[in-house]
Amino acid sequence: MLFSDNLERLIEGFSRFPGIGRKTAQRLAWHLIAEEKSFAETLAESITTVSESFRPCTRCLMLSESDPCPICASKSRDKSQICIVENSADVFIIEKMNEYNGLYFVLGHLLSPIDGFGPKEIHADQLRKMVEEHSPQEIILALKPSSEGEATMHYLSEILEDESRKITRLSIGLPFGGDLEYSSNNTLRNAWARRHSV
Amino acid sequence: MLFSDNLERLIEGFSRFPGIGRKTAQRLAWHLIAEEKSFAETLAESITTVSESFRPCTRCLMLSESDPCPICASKSRDKSQICIVENSADVFIIEKMNEYNGLYFVLGHLLSPIDGFGPKEIHADQLRKMVEEHSPQEIILALKPSSEGEATMHYLSEILEDESRKITRLSIGLPFGGDLEYSSNNTLRNAWARRHSV
Repeated sequence: MLFSDNLERLIEGFSRFPGIGRKTAQRLAWHLIAEEKSFAETLAESITTVSESFRPCTRCLMLSESDPCPICASKSRDKSQICIVENSADVFIIEKMNEYNGLYFVLGHLLSPIDGFGPKEIHADQLRKMVEEHSPQEIILALKPSSEGEATMHYLSEILEDESRKITRLSIGLPFGGDLEYSSNNTLRNAWARRHSV
Repeated sequence: MLFSDNLERLIEGFSRFPGIGRKTAQRLAWHLIAEEKSFAETLAESITTVSESFRPCTRCLMLSESDPCPICASKSRDKSQICIVENSADVFIIEKMNEYNGLYFVLGHLLSPIDGFGPKEIHADQLRKMVEEHSPQEIILALKPSSEGEATMHYLSEILEDESRKITRLSIGLPFGGDLEYSSNNTLRNAWARRHSV
């Protein structure tokens, strides 16, 4: 009797989110039960609405409510730059920085042959098509510096290589406000190798 | 354009859970969008079902799908003990311990006059009625040892005082596996005062 089937199903649902363990899922479920019904109603409604209204932009694969997405559709974006990111959330992180006004391409995954993510899964053909169409002057590989990220950047820089354009990646270094003591050896080594005069 | 109204509403909904900040809420929302539609459907459904089917047991105020709740309705529970907890989630934590077979009473809040939580908000009258009805031999105050918890235990022990019964509370001490070094002064002082021969 401890957890009813309905409650168990809800806890199970919450714990399918990344970073939400069973204990947190239980806490969320109890909060939901204890709150006013209108809270649950509104939440269930937005979950359904959002899930039904977002799909990949046919050009850049960003999840969006419109197709093409607002960025691909915009006339004011600079089409000479394409920034390649792992997922749609990354687009919002970069947009918030307020530094970049080019296009994006969302891979959806990083290369990881062991897990079954090869060139097809990262939509390499569609990326190539987009690059051919726009002939950008710069392609920015804004992927995370992990082993999968590095492998993906290596692969993409090979298939997209062309004399007419620059292919760049984000620098690795100490995080702002980060202590040397708490930085990984890899981070420190990279920050060291890329040291520059002040 | 950064966040559409629908997405904003969903993020807003997630961040109303305690312990979920805006960044986590965004991450949950993006995960939901990126997952298969069936995930969102199932989740929205369980949220609605659970929220509609749970309400307070008219006897002990625990949130439950049946009224009386399974514990109040059970013939095998020991009615000579009543354990008083802050909220319904606490009932499950104590049940999981597998040590207790008595009844519960769920206050819903701790006393906190500044925040508007007085005797009425903790359902003191209904608690008194339940105690009169069962005349338990022991009332266990399983509330957290915070200032609100202490104030509530003090108040309840006064209104429930009776020669015929024991009123107990959980002991304060070092957490199992906890270092002295990381224990608060209050915890250590209590553990010290309650030291016993080994």
